[in-house]
Amino acid sequence: MKLSQIGELSLLEQIRRSFCKKSKNIIVGIGDDAAVVKPLGKNLLVTTDMMVEGVHFDLSFTTPYQLGFKLISVNVSDVYAMGGKPFYLLLNIAVNKNTNKKFMDRLFDGVKDALTLYDAILIGGDLSATNAGTALSATVIGYVKKHIPRSGANIGDKIYVTGYLGNSACGLELLKKIKRPVPLENKGQRKQNTPSLTLPPRGGEKGWGGEFKLRTLCSELLNGLSWKVVEPLLRRHLMPEARDSKKFVKDATSMIDVSDGLLIDLWRLCNESKVGARIYIENIPVSPELRKAASYLGISPIKLALSGGEDYELLFTAPAEKKVKAIHIGDITESEKVIFDSSGRKKPFSAKGYDHFAQ
Amino acid sequence: MKLSQIGELSLLEQIRRSFCKKSKNIIVGIGDDAAVVKPLGKNLLVTTDMMVEGVHFDLSFTTPYQLGFKLISVNVSDVYAMGGKPFYLLLNIAVNKNTNKKFMDRLFDGVKDALTLYDAILIGGDLSATNAGTALSATVIGYVKKHIPRSGANIGDKIYVTGYLGNSACGLELLKKIKRPVPLENKGQRKQNTPSLTLPPRGGEKGWGGEFKLRTLCSELLNGLSWKVVEPLLRRHLMPEARDSKKFVKDATSMIDVSDGLLIDLWRLCNESKVGARIYIENIPVSPELRKAASYLGISPIKLALSGGEDYELLFTAPAEKKVKAIHIGDITESEKVIFDSSGRKKPFSAKGYDHFAQ
Repeated sequence: MKLSQIGELSLLEQIRRSFCKKSKNIIVGIGDDAAVVKPLGKNLLVTTDMMVEGVHFDLSFTTPYQLGFKLISVNVSDVYAMGGKPFYLLLNIAVNKNTNKKFMDRLFDGVKDALTLYDAILIGGDLSATNAGTALSATVIGYVKKHIPRSGANIGDKIYVTGYLGNSACGLELLKKIKRPVPLENKGQRKQNTPSLTLPPRGGEKGWGGEFKLRTLCSELLNGLSWKVVEPLLRRHLMPEARDSKKFVKDATSMIDVSDGLLIDLWRLCNESKVGARIYIENIPVSPELRKAASYLGISPIKLALSGGEDYELLFTAPAEKKVKAIHIGDITESEKVIFDSSGRKKPFSAKGYDHFAQ
Repeated sequence: MKLSQIGELSLLEQIRRSFCKKSKNIIVGIGDDAAVVKPLGKNLLVTTDMMVEGVHFDLSFTTPYQLGFKLISVNVSDVYAMGGKPFYLLLNIAVNKNTNKKFMDRLFDGVKDALTLYDAILIGGDLSATNAGTALSATVIGYVKKHIPRSGANIGDKIYVTGYLGNSACGLELLKKIKRPVPLENKGQRKQNTPSLTLPPRGGEKGWGGEFKLRTLCSELLNGLSWKVVEPLLRRHLMPEARDSKKFVKDATSMIDVSDGLLIDLWRLCNESKVGARIYIENIPVSPELRKAASYLGISPIKLALSGGEDYELLFTAPAEKKVKAIHIGDITESEKVIFDSSGRKKPFSAKGYDHFAQ
């Protein structure tokens, strides 16, 4: 059934029922002009992020569930990157009025599962039709005791990341070959070698190419790459989970999440902190899956790790004497921004990441 | 110059410089992963609203300045409708990458002037390109001591509105005839009978029809309607100012802003309060300008006042014994929702307003 047949009011009513979650701190939730929440005494964190069809996502290989899930992760990641905890979510959704009701239901399923994961509650939003593609934005409100700015890095601090870089960008490259949605909703699939999942035909409901087993996908489209290699890369791109910064808050002097790429985000952190950085290519965490898939794709894995965006790992600094359980990739220096390669040669780096307005 | 030539980073830097406003309550403003603000001890109000090209606005007769101004008003109106005061703004802007830098500058001028009017501060946001039209969303954060929900109306309460209804919808009808942007940025124009303002050619820069004096516009396109009649109608549609609820907070039992139309918004308020309402057509405030312009357009002014949206007047209820300085349009009843016409005949009303997904 199309949204135009259901109508805005009944859709809103359904969302309200589905997301109605009681909390002693929410005085007015979804359904009034604005939400009302009790103050928590701590400082407030607020962040907002947009996802626009054709720019941030491609519905020919993203399921609506994944879209909803990722929208929340992307925003929660910003709250974690300040050292805070997410509490409330507001959602703006603009979809074409010919959109199927099922699309919206699955989108909201993704939002809901992400909210459960991050222990946050939907308290408001806005729905609209568009004459064009889908555009989503979310605002997350959280609290923080001691916030970690981008600007706090000191000369001599060590630079850390919380996990593999480049997986998301590599997942995107694989998806451009697969050219159809790959449902990853069930985490159990991760453990199976090649699950017997049947993929929808390319091009969604209109379809071409017919149904397709994952096994066939890997062997035919990806030249025999195993599902064990492919799955974590696709998952990092389609359904990233934001990294909680809780255990680093005590020691971190500055922090940012890697959304646009390691180099551009490190460059931002350095600029805000008015310091330089040296990073060591050998220390950059590259997953074995990325190495295998990048080799098949003919792309340098280190290039993906340095400049590929959307990994949503945390990038932070801490004093050298602190014992930090994260991956040490370099050190804060006075002003030079350089990468050392494995033979000890250094190369300067600048803001090379994703520019939304670049041609 | 196109945005693609300027780049996201330098645009962000410019916004940051332009909106950098100090406040002792803002610990981290624009430019980090999230904004950090001090708690104020009062309850927090949060609201978000979207404006999508082709649905909420038409750039063939809306200037970017007006767009920016209205986006803020629309969101602030929701905060006022809860009995609160706006403090902070977050902005999401998705524009085509071929957008002119001047467009963005004027959009931000409109945002800035609205923020000054409402005494609020921009603390964050997100910029993106689109392959299609412009989509904007804003989140406003405010504080409230005693919030006024939609659900507080009691049987016997009087129903009030704060000003003329239908002006915005009538302004929109006039704009569909004018078919070109009408700059209203300078309030001084309001006082002049027919200012000598020169309008840009239709179709923006590409243009057709050449330059056009407002005097000519009124006489040629609007059959001699005077600028004094036309201006407040256009202004209410293009640059609405949100109504501060401050002086009604003490007495109001329920409140909503008239965004989708009097009937649909009253219907919502009644539903939330589980009451009925009777309103008197004769009491509905219709401006003399609306009467004149509606007569020219051949539309019933009362129809525009009852069902036209986007006036952003406040609709609220208060106990009958309270002296309230607003326009009394009806009374809260047990369950029936009816309109009385001038001869005392009653007609039921239902949610007739704007449905974004309706065909």
